[in-house]
Amino acid sequence: MKNLGYYNGKYDLIENMTIPMNDRVCYFGDGVYDATYSRNHVIFALDEHIDRFFNSAGLLKIKIPYTKDELKELLNDMVKKVDSGEQFVYWQVTRGTAMRNHIFPEDDVKANVWIILKPQKVKDMSQKLRLITLEDTRFLHCNIKTLNLLPSVMAAQKADEKDCQEAVFHRGDRVTECAHSNVSIIKDGIFKTAPADNLILPGIARAHIIKMCKKFEIPVNETPFTLEELMDADEVIVTSSGQFCMTTCEIDGTPVGGKAPEIVKKLQDALSAEFLKETDKVQEGII
Amino acid sequence: MKNLGYYNGKYDLIENMTIPMNDRVCYFGDGVYDATYSRNHVIFALDEHIDRFFNSAGLLKIKIPYTKDELKELLNDMVKKVDSGEQFVYWQVTRGTAMRNHIFPEDDVKANVWIILKPQKVKDMSQKLRLITLEDTRFLHCNIKTLNLLPSVMAAQKADEKDCQEAVFHRGDRVTECAHSNVSIIKDGIFKTAPADNLILPGIARAHIIKMCKKFEIPVNETPFTLEELMDADEVIVTSSGQFCMTTCEIDGTPVGGKAPEIVKKLQDALSAEFLKETDKVQEGII
Repeated sequence: MKNLGYYNGKYDLIENMTIPMNDRVCYFGDGVYDATYSRNHVIFALDEHIDRFFNSAGLLKIKIPYTKDELKELLNDMVKKVDSGEQFVYWQVTRGTAMRNHIFPEDDVKANVWIILKPQKVKDMSQKLRLITLEDTRFLHCNIKTLNLLPSVMAAQKADEKDCQEAVFHRGDRVTECAHSNVSIIKDGIFKTAPADNLILPGIARAHIIKMCKKFEIPVNETPFTLEELMDADEVIVTSSGQFCMTTCEIDGTPVGGKAPEIVKKLQDALSAEFLKETDKVQEGII
Repeated sequence: MKNLGYYNGKYDLIENMTIPMNDRVCYFGDGVYDATYSRNHVIFALDEHIDRFFNSAGLLKIKIPYTKDELKELLNDMVKKVDSGEQFVYWQVTRGTAMRNHIFPEDDVKANVWIILKPQKVKDMSQKLRLITLEDTRFLHCNIKTLNLLPSVMAAQKADEKDCQEAVFHRGDRVTECAHSNVSIIKDGIFKTAPADNLILPGIARAHIIKMCKKFEIPVNETPFTLEELMDADEVIVTSSGQFCMTTCEIDGTPVGGKAPEIVKKLQDALSAEFLKETDKVQEGII
């Protein structure tokens, strides 16, 4: 198949799939998701993404109707059905199907499981990003990967209209994260990134880059940083599951970064190698 | 029909309706809604709700594919198809159907129009509510009636688990509104309600009660009030499209209000009479 949409056991091309009007996603955005990439039909960092997915659901008291192992098996099975081995691998759970009512449905209403797979490669890290900055007006649950994403949609659109690739959110002077990525800085050889509190998503690419910094003995400071520090950084690094370590050349039209290319290169090479190695695994049953 | 679901021209019982997986509501909650009630198949305060709906959509740059008059005509037509004349009349617009991408879809992708109608009466105002209080952790766009409602869902559920009917949100000491209603107080003959800024929904029931206060020469103070003022009020009033003027007997288990019943009675009677009068209108074509 050229892509795949899955909903509670049914699957087809995404564009052919339908879901019930009464799925609570339709009225409340009542669900959580997670996403990563595959190569050679092997899903990268799946355990970490599954752990975060169950955590997001748990924080909102959504009961995923599968065990972690069952869900992994399902995802591993589904990625094999798509023609390209390089896929954007996305899944979500919504609280169930019931007549509109804010209160949770009865206990016998099961949560709905969704999967969306489409051919897409991780981003080429030689590109440099242009960013805009925006006041962070989101809710205080940014640690949960929910389907309530309107502020991120509006920010991503604003960035795109300015021919930029991402928007950096800040609460007052404090930088939090981007619309759909984490943002970190390198200054004087130190990697600085906002702490994983309720104002940012605990990014898995962020965790990987931190681990890599530690491996290379680059000191890591998980503490809030300001817009001024962002503009004055040696490098501004944007990370997400599809972009392991992107650098930035411009923020709000002002040139930034580009002053620690050797550190960036070391991290990019190591993260890229990690991805290639994990997705080179020979797995049983791969087409 | 016993109820009605509508999506871009198709309609059926809500439970039979499906929508495309790629409707942007499924990934981002990317839409806005509005809702009111009907009686005798006549929709109450429709012009005001339609105005607010277009305003919500406009603030998020969603282009509703109908004029206000066309949408009103559609709603007036649909309410006649449901057996009961007393309905919860709900409609929403979502940004369109396209493969998942934060950025808006191309201009030729039209927004999707939804309607949900189900038998339901406005609330009996002789009941008194029990409330809980909760820190307001929502985003800073509460003036827009979006489909990003997770914090309201979680709050409504918490209230229900404590055998209460609503949750009062507060940002620090400042009371904002309830999970799905506005909240106001009466103290020393003055009606006090939070200003219609970006922290609350500009409720239409709230606007009606303010208008009614002015008619009765009850002074209105649209200014923020605190949790302490809430607990110390003569009356705590909860308003929404289905509950024009509800009083409160208890907040977090502590008795509140009940000290200005004559003002409450005057407002309730007037608001109820207004609803009955408007929905008694003889309209052409009513079944």
